[in-house]
Amino acid sequence: MLIEGRNAVREALSNDVTINKLMVDKALEHRHDEIVTLAYKKHVKVEFVMKNVLDKKSLTSRHQSFIAEAVDFKYCEVTDILAKSKQQSSVPFIVLLDGIEDPHNFGAIIRSCECAGVDGIIIPKNRACQVNETVIRTSTGAITNMLIAKVTNLKDAIDTLKGAGVWVFACETGGEDIYSKNLNLPIALIIGSEGKGIKQSLRAYADGILTLPLMGKVNSLNASVACGVAVFEVLRQKIKGV
Amino acid sequence: MLIEGRNAVREALSNDVTINKLMVDKALEHRHDEIVTLAYKKHVKVEFVMKNVLDKKSLTSRHQSFIAEAVDFKYCEVTDILAKSKQQSSVPFIVLLDGIEDPHNFGAIIRSCECAGVDGIIIPKNRACQVNETVIRTSTGAITNMLIAKVTNLKDAIDTLKGAGVWVFACETGGEDIYSKNLNLPIALIIGSEGKGIKQSLRAYADGILTLPLMGKVNSLNASVACGVAVFEVLRQKIKGV
Repeated sequence: MLIEGRNAVREALSNDVTINKLMVDKALEHRHDEIVTLAYKKHVKVEFVMKNVLDKKSLTSRHQSFIAEAVDFKYCEVTDILAKSKQQSSVPFIVLLDGIEDPHNFGAIIRSCECAGVDGIIIPKNRACQVNETVIRTSTGAITNMLIAKVTNLKDAIDTLKGAGVWVFACETGGEDIYSKNLNLPIALIIGSEGKGIKQSLRAYADGILTLPLMGKVNSLNASVACGVAVFEVLRQKIKGV
Repeated sequence: MLIEGRNAVREALSNDVTINKLMVDKALEHRHDEIVTLAYKKHVKVEFVMKNVLDKKSLTSRHQSFIAEAVDFKYCEVTDILAKSKQQSSVPFIVLLDGIEDPHNFGAIIRSCECAGVDGIIIPKNRACQVNETVIRTSTGAITNMLIAKVTNLKDAIDTLKGAGVWVFACETGGEDIYSKNLNLPIALIIGSEGKGIKQSLRAYADGILTLPLMGKVNSLNASVACGVAVFEVLRQKIKGV
């Protein structure tokens, strides 16, 4: 798997992602570049190559002089996410994505979740964007600090969460005002896909529906923005109370 | 200017954007399509064409059977935005973008701002993404309901806002906790660009800096997510109080 771009490579190195090789633009060979220094410190093999080699290798066309060859992303289990919360003695804070398809949205969601202190993200195996190079790049490295479980059935995952005492809320229109609800609980938020929102069967299976007030004529936010606003409202309540 | 995609075209029609012509996939000619019905109701000329004509005309490759030829986007003045707040007897709620470059981010920001009840957005004339087809499409039509002022100098715009009693805050790291600050004021938020954040000179010119708590290792959010979280925090305080 390739990790491209200055920020994404820095984060991967900082978080001890196993990197087989880091390729760097030859133009940087005799400069003191922080990424190169960090790579040496982490005992990662550095190879200086011509820019056109990077251009050819790049899958995103935005390598910014750095491409790392990392071992493939390892998904975890839902129970690993719950174990992480327990280990950190914090209440579980989890996000389920019901069919996000755009890798930029997925990457931005991982970044927002990491920033808001989410313990892990659960995605379905089918009909959804998987972790790929664009996702990694868009997450600006946040993915190296995030547990992601890939499951066959989101309902089963919700059962596991409910069994562990986690409250599962769907973020959608037509529910309770998110700002009037106590979210300072063991919580999992379901975020719907870009076009179709949350599947009706899944929505009905949640403990409740949380809705953002919308003041305009457009009736929904971009999926990654909606997720960002929701996870930061949970964080706000954790910090400040309801 | 072209407006492409079912949602964007529907919003444009609903908001009485001046459309010269709406081109629709011929396959929809004898179906009762809501967009076509709406176009007829708004006395917009509808032309049914072969799908390959739309494919060729499309600038985004995502026309979803609908391309509208609209008159070019009309920017407004900063004073128009202030007049809008006054007209609605509400306190001004404005967003300044300091050099957003990605049209997807700009479009998502317009969508979030429209949803959060922002009166208008101010962008710089240079070194920033302007309203284009991708922006319109990504805003899912929100742009037709949003005032956007394009200015030569953001500082001058800030002076105009300050003169009208508006508090101007930069959204950046290293400032006051956004959740501890009273934002239920005549307010303008400055959002920085994707790579560089807010220019130092502009940050120093603001009345204060608002910072989101970040719990992870990544030290910033995607620009459109950061804007979304910030404008919804202002909206939350407007609705619920601090």
